[in-house]
Amino acid sequence: MLIYIDKDTKAPIYEQIYTILRQKILSGSLKFADKLPATRKLATELSIGRNTVDRAYQQLIAEGYVTSKVGSGFTVNKIPIEFAVSDQVDFSAHSLEKAQSQSVSIRYDFAHGATDNSIFPYKQWRKSINYALNLMESYSCIHYPSRQGEASLRQNISSYLQRSRGVRCNASQVIITCGHQHSMEVIANMFEHSSKRFAMEDPGYDGVRIVFQNHNYQLTPIPVEKDGVSIEPIKILNTDHLLYLTPSHQFPTGVILPIAKRRKLIHWAFNTNSYLIEDDYDSELRYDTNPIPSLQSLDIHGRTIYTGTFSKSLSPSMRVAYIVLPDSLMDTYRRYYHRYNSQVSALHQIALADFIASGNYEKHINRLRIFYRKRQNALLTALREVFGNTAFISGEGAGKHILLTLKNSLSQDDLIKRAENIGIRVYSTKEHYMNPIDCPHSQILLGFSIIPTHDLKLVLEELHHAWNND
Amino acid sequence: MLIYIDKDTKAPIYEQIYTILRQKILSGSLKFADKLPATRKLATELSIGRNTVDRAYQQLIAEGYVTSKVGSGFTVNKIPIEFAVSDQVDFSAHSLEKAQSQSVSIRYDFAHGATDNSIFPYKQWRKSINYALNLMESYSCIHYPSRQGEASLRQNISSYLQRSRGVRCNASQVIITCGHQHSMEVIANMFEHSSKRFAMEDPGYDGVRIVFQNHNYQLTPIPVEKDGVSIEPIKILNTDHLLYLTPSHQFPTGVILPIAKRRKLIHWAFNTNSYLIEDDYDSELRYDTNPIPSLQSLDIHGRTIYTGTFSKSLSPSMRVAYIVLPDSLMDTYRRYYHRYNSQVSALHQIALADFIASGNYEKHINRLRIFYRKRQNALLTALREVFGNTAFISGEGAGKHILLTLKNSLSQDDLIKRAENIGIRVYSTKEHYMNPIDCPHSQILLGFSIIPTHDLKLVLEELHHAWNND
Repeated sequence: MLIYIDKDTKAPIYEQIYTILRQKILSGSLKFADKLPATRKLATELSIGRNTVDRAYQQLIAEGYVTSKVGSGFTVNKIPIEFAVSDQVDFSAHSLEKAQSQSVSIRYDFAHGATDNSIFPYKQWRKSINYALNLMESYSCIHYPSRQGEASLRQNISSYLQRSRGVRCNASQVIITCGHQHSMEVIANMFEHSSKRFAMEDPGYDGVRIVFQNHNYQLTPIPVEKDGVSIEPIKILNTDHLLYLTPSHQFPTGVILPIAKRRKLIHWAFNTNSYLIEDDYDSELRYDTNPIPSLQSLDIHGRTIYTGTFSKSLSPSMRVAYIVLPDSLMDTYRRYYHRYNSQVSALHQIALADFIASGNYEKHINRLRIFYRKRQNALLTALREVFGNTAFISGEGAGKHILLTLKNSLSQDDLIKRAENIGIRVYSTKEHYMNPIDCPHSQILLGFSIIPTHDLKLVLEELHHAWNND
Repeated sequence: MLIYIDKDTKAPIYEQIYTILRQKILSGSLKFADKLPATRKLATELSIGRNTVDRAYQQLIAEGYVTSKVGSGFTVNKIPIEFAVSDQVDFSAHSLEKAQSQSVSIRYDFAHGATDNSIFPYKQWRKSINYALNLMESYSCIHYPSRQGEASLRQNISSYLQRSRGVRCNASQVIITCGHQHSMEVIANMFEHSSKRFAMEDPGYDGVRIVFQNHNYQLTPIPVEKDGVSIEPIKILNTDHLLYLTPSHQFPTGVILPIAKRRKLIHWAFNTNSYLIEDDYDSELRYDTNPIPSLQSLDIHGRTIYTGTFSKSLSPSMRVAYIVLPDSLMDTYRRYYHRYNSQVSALHQIALADFIASGNYEKHINRLRIFYRKRQNALLTALREVFGNTAFISGEGAGKHILLTLKNSLSQDDLIKRAENIGIRVYSTKEHYMNPIDCPHSQILLGFSIIPTHDLKLVLEELHHAWNND
């Protein structure tokens, strides 16, 4: 058998032998039951050690190319040849993600999900990351993180929520997740074997709707009025519903659910064996009053599943959120998840626990509130100056966005397109409506999380011009 | 109206007024349509500023307790009283997670999922974490991480897999997940609207089986023979199956799937519109031969979904894994996930990308291979010395565990219980069988990922004694 080896290349000799023989087998030049040269013979032929040949043969045996039998040496196995291995596969590059085709580059972005990086407390966060690395380095071994989340983080979140949101809970009810959508996945999974009825605010966050749609829940949209979700359509719902709400700051309208409606919803949930899913996504960021107490804090009957996230208050790139389950649902949770590992990195969990325990989280929230209040005020002032009474502002006083409804006849798509044509990105509210037809005409969503304030008036004047220039 | 305020406490006065009025409304002492004192009057009564009273009233309005009408002042709203808010809710502490009741504390743990912390490259990892923090600090704003994962990490994983595992892919096919179970969830979700037929090795990793069971897939167990999964039962499967395999190191038996069977499976998948899910969980850790090339590297027809994880090679507490999808499935992935955010922290993704790009990952893998090879050898030597031919070892040569089958009549439960009674934890293989009856009698799983080697012989002698002492 002809085997050429190259003693001058980097590739080890046993690997060269392995590769050549493997290729001969795959190409059919070595066939089923053919014998490989005896190791001693091949070693002599190639002037190499017998161990080197043996190592190549062992690899071929391990991968199933040949068999070694006492007395008959190394023989080639039967290998289906229908599928020849070819190296001529086309791996032509294609775009990583379909880039949105844009003729004009975006100069100003009225985004609302992002965070301004200048306010992020890198110094304190680095301290907490280092604390976590030091702690982890001191362990003798590394396990999977605790299923529900690190105990220290659950304890700190539970104390924080009791303190700042009046949430009635202890650490055992807290579940750490990788973001709000993951929280929704966990809830959708938990109720997988129930009646799968899901009602939600309409308009409401489409990132939540899609999760329950994908889990094949039966969806009922509940209209949002000037004081939050409408109660009448809820009263006639079947039993065993999940009802998703953003009571402290309705997304996207910005309205607050009043105490009377909260009481009615808790009553309804209690009477119909239903659960309220409270999404408290940015409740810390209220500027006109104190933060609104959570719905869960009013519920002494354990019908509220409370959910929150660090995406708005700290960073959307961190991917940590949490669920507070009523005690009565802990068994349902464990039944579904008893064989699952946590999906949240231990480093982040430990660092976050330290960050909260040290008081840095609450300090940051207070700074954030001042920061975004100023920014919202700047936006509102500039809007009033530029648009006067040609547009109506709603949803102000909290969060990172407002709604602007123009008194003209342009559609959301037109408004967005005209803005994009001059390098400004504004957002639609359409996707948050179950039925896009219900969406108010000429309404857009303006986030103020990353827009710079200094040339705000100029930017709005450009927008005003683009929208009124026919 | 009697309102006592305490000017000496820390609580702001407006908050005291708010709390007192809120309590009066909730307790019914202020009823529907009752009027609150005029702000000017109350301010004079309490000798405080009118703004302070106004702030308390605004909070009550925001939360829906009262309404302000021009001319008629502040009146209490109608609030359902059926559900009085009580502070006497019992939050008696209960155990965070049901602790396993243990009479004896565990001194030695033959775990396999954990990692020895002494080998973790903290110095290099800290460098990469700092690199990521610096990079992130330089951004002007923080967005949600890219949906499929950070481009830099996908690029580095794709190059690494091409180099070390022969995987045919580019970065656009890589999806970053929060661990192997999350990868399985993604795949289960992607095929949610297909025929939902799932076949898997039996025995096979139960953490995978539970995911597809929970997603209501129809499950077919495929027996594992001495050379991997049996082909005959696969040939008679329906079309449109997903077939889950651990070809390079079958879990838990440790066998390698030979080339002939790999070819047949690819052929079968191609002919039946099925997909192979290759779980390459610890392929880097092979001690007796070179790592076995991936199944995906043989598949020129794009029928293999390749999955891997950093849990075995780096740390189980990091929660980063990946999927390499065939190009033909990218649209299916995007269709399901187009409205989802990534669930993996940007910090970890950027740090990992840097860690791989700097060559530190591959250096670590090489150190790890030497480390665990030594440890496995120590375990095998000690086992042979202590158990002689009273036990049969299998699954050696790779990974972080072996199987030990005793030639006595004790069940897995007995073996585990007896070990636990003397403070030693060994593991069953039972849960990895679809039907526990199929599980070999007197077999246990011994992991060597965190067990110290110096007193290994002593520990095994204790075990031997406990298992042979009737």
